[in-house]
Amino acid sequence: MAKVEVAAVSTREDCLALDEGDALAAQREQFTLNEGEIYLDGNSLGPVSRAVSTRVNQVISTEWGRGLARGWSEAGWMEMPVRLGDRLAPLIGAQPGEVLVADTLTFMLAKLIGGALDLRLDRHVVLTDVANFHSDLYIVQAMAARAGRPVTVKAIERRALESELSDDVALVMLTQVDYRSGEALDMKAITRAVHGAGALMLWDLAHSAGALPLDVTDAGVDFAAGCTYKYLNGGPGAPAFVYVRSAWQGVLQNPLPGWLGHARPFSFESDYEPAKGMQSFVTSSPPVIALAALDGALDVWDHVTIDEVRAKSLALTDLFIQLVETRLPGIFDVVTPREHEKRGSQVALRHPDAYGVVQALIECGVVGDFRAPDIARFGFAPLYLRYVDVFDGVERLVKVMNNERFLDPRFATRRPVT
Amino acid sequence: MAKVEVAAVSTREDCLALDEGDALAAQREQFTLNEGEIYLDGNSLGPVSRAVSTRVNQVISTEWGRGLARGWSEAGWMEMPVRLGDRLAPLIGAQPGEVLVADTLTFMLAKLIGGALDLRLDRHVVLTDVANFHSDLYIVQAMAARAGRPVTVKAIERRALESELSDDVALVMLTQVDYRSGEALDMKAITRAVHGAGALMLWDLAHSAGALPLDVTDAGVDFAAGCTYKYLNGGPGAPAFVYVRSAWQGVLQNPLPGWLGHARPFSFESDYEPAKGMQSFVTSSPPVIALAALDGALDVWDHVTIDEVRAKSLALTDLFIQLVETRLPGIFDVVTPREHEKRGSQVALRHPDAYGVVQALIECGVVGDFRAPDIARFGFAPLYLRYVDVFDGVERLVKVMNNERFLDPRFATRRPVT
Repeated sequence: MAKVEVAAVSTREDCLALDEGDALAAQREQFTLNEGEIYLDGNSLGPVSRAVSTRVNQVISTEWGRGLARGWSEAGWMEMPVRLGDRLAPLIGAQPGEVLVADTLTFMLAKLIGGALDLRLDRHVVLTDVANFHSDLYIVQAMAARAGRPVTVKAIERRALESELSDDVALVMLTQVDYRSGEALDMKAITRAVHGAGALMLWDLAHSAGALPLDVTDAGVDFAAGCTYKYLNGGPGAPAFVYVRSAWQGVLQNPLPGWLGHARPFSFESDYEPAKGMQSFVTSSPPVIALAALDGALDVWDHVTIDEVRAKSLALTDLFIQLVETRLPGIFDVVTPREHEKRGSQVALRHPDAYGVVQALIECGVVGDFRAPDIARFGFAPLYLRYVDVFDGVERLVKVMNNERFLDPRFATRRPVT
Repeated sequence: MAKVEVAAVSTREDCLALDEGDALAAQREQFTLNEGEIYLDGNSLGPVSRAVSTRVNQVISTEWGRGLARGWSEAGWMEMPVRLGDRLAPLIGAQPGEVLVADTLTFMLAKLIGGALDLRLDRHVVLTDVANFHSDLYIVQAMAARAGRPVTVKAIERRALESELSDDVALVMLTQVDYRSGEALDMKAITRAVHGAGALMLWDLAHSAGALPLDVTDAGVDFAAGCTYKYLNGGPGAPAFVYVRSAWQGVLQNPLPGWLGHARPFSFESDYEPAKGMQSFVTSSPPVIALAALDGALDVWDHVTIDEVRAKSLALTDLFIQLVETRLPGIFDVVTPREHEKRGSQVALRHPDAYGVVQALIECGVVGDFRAPDIARFGFAPLYLRYVDVFDGVERLVKVMNNERFLDPRFATRRPVT
């Protein structure tokens, strides 16, 4: 991975020079961004690219418009979940036929959790991170309650994982990059430890896919799922992806089955018989228009590598941290780890008035977001973000802090944007 | 409901005259249809209307394109599931706040089945129709298996329903219009009988919504769900709708919960506390682009009533049956009931070579579909179908039957279109 050195950078001109030499710079043109606005919220929702509009309109005007119901066979709609899964697979180090795109992240987790618990019938504990995204916590509790035997979900501190692993642990479910702090976990080391206890490992890759290189194959990951509306720019509420290691296919059963996961969907048989491979994890008719949007959004990956993206991501976050600490010393607690291998593609700054800071910054044309109780969160998506944006963003942050605009009474109510 | 009398119709001119006087005729212009093609497959996938394209492109270019993550609050994306539910509610006789649009039909059924079984803990049987759509059969079996107590799913003949009702029946799940035969069940009478046995009633309205007037309120229905890609023209794989009677809201629990169904989603709390009302049945971030397509598709209902649509639907299906029996006597077994109150908006013709008949007809520009083993299925969607289309469609069917084109060896393999 080509390393971009930013340690010595401090001027706007330095940043402009880095942009000049940036191999990814040309990709920015593909995206719709607001003139003068610095968008540091792509870790919440990525922007739209031209290919999204083209592909969606192709479906509306031609595939659906002219083909009508024939689209299911003639336009390849039925195969979209598997085809898009194969497009996305290299980004997480999966093999062809191991990834599927459909449904939503929470439902995909429900399928994986339910299926995984059925594979360890003699075990009664699921471990997860107390700091996990709350939707993950709700669905794991819900599926544990329906496991057909007493299963306890323990939401633990991450550092307690090894001591909590026992021969009663069926499944460990963790999120690889923490949505709040931006800390990245060592997928391989943790998976190995979990396997050492005879448990199964499920990773939530919501904040990882498209942000940093992953190798689920090498890490020995059993199952994973993630969303496609953050660093993959698939659009608001875009479908989720699911990964099932090939060794588990045909063994792991989909606990929420539907007709399109049947071995012979058009035989209309009363009893469920799973299709081979990932197709058995398809439940319903694919959401074609939403999948088309994602299909377009994935086009950018035909021209860039995740390693290039990662190199620039680390440079951007290094630069941001460096500038924040230089220009605003002692004002923020940088929650995100300094070590590259422990960092996702976002930086979290802790401040007692984080909510007001984020709102005041948005008014100044820098979009980040707030996560309760005291985190200002900034995402750095290398496909459309420039070094100079980081520089200008921090300068605006300096203004917001210096004039104490974040204390504006309008920001007293802590109602986050999203 | 204005009744259109077609008993005396027999000529093409008669049909043209009916089209001339048809109050719904103007709606056809809103839809994309192929010149010269007669589309009798809207019961599988409805065509695209202009407003779909307009609304989707508004989201892509403005709400998402310019608003980015702010769309969640500023463009009302968060409220879309409930807002679209309210738009759709009058079509099924539901009250505001009783319908939600999200996910897929099978997942919505999973939520309702799981929740309903938790309301009848002392009962151990679910009754459903052996002829139900197979995805419904798979998911009811799957959710029964996770009920936390032994629950048996009995897939019975419809006529055996009353005799199978007992005080051990927790839930009855039926589809109001049979996907194969087009037979419509008496929702009110059946719901009353089910309630008489102390059981809960769940209706699948996939082939009903937008096709015929329903009154879930008057019928005392507990729960219902349906899809929006058939007579509601929401697009391939469009989201599903779910109905929960207001009396059950706050009582029925969503067994597959997610963060957006939480009472305080942005407090990021570890334990699930359901939101009030239908919001608790939202699991994940709404699929905004797909919902926008449906939003556009529902515009047509601002200009027409479901009663008008039903009157024309019955006239179209009467006309089709009459012409088929007059022009092709003794060739087909008309499976769909003659009685209006027992008919959905499709006509099913049984023929040993139904597969070949459908394929040969498609070649002649009449799109219907095949359902195993021997049903040729034709949907009649009054928003874009003309009386003269029915006439011309039957004339093409006459040609196909007279020249035995359906015996073409290419059609020997029974691979259905969808």
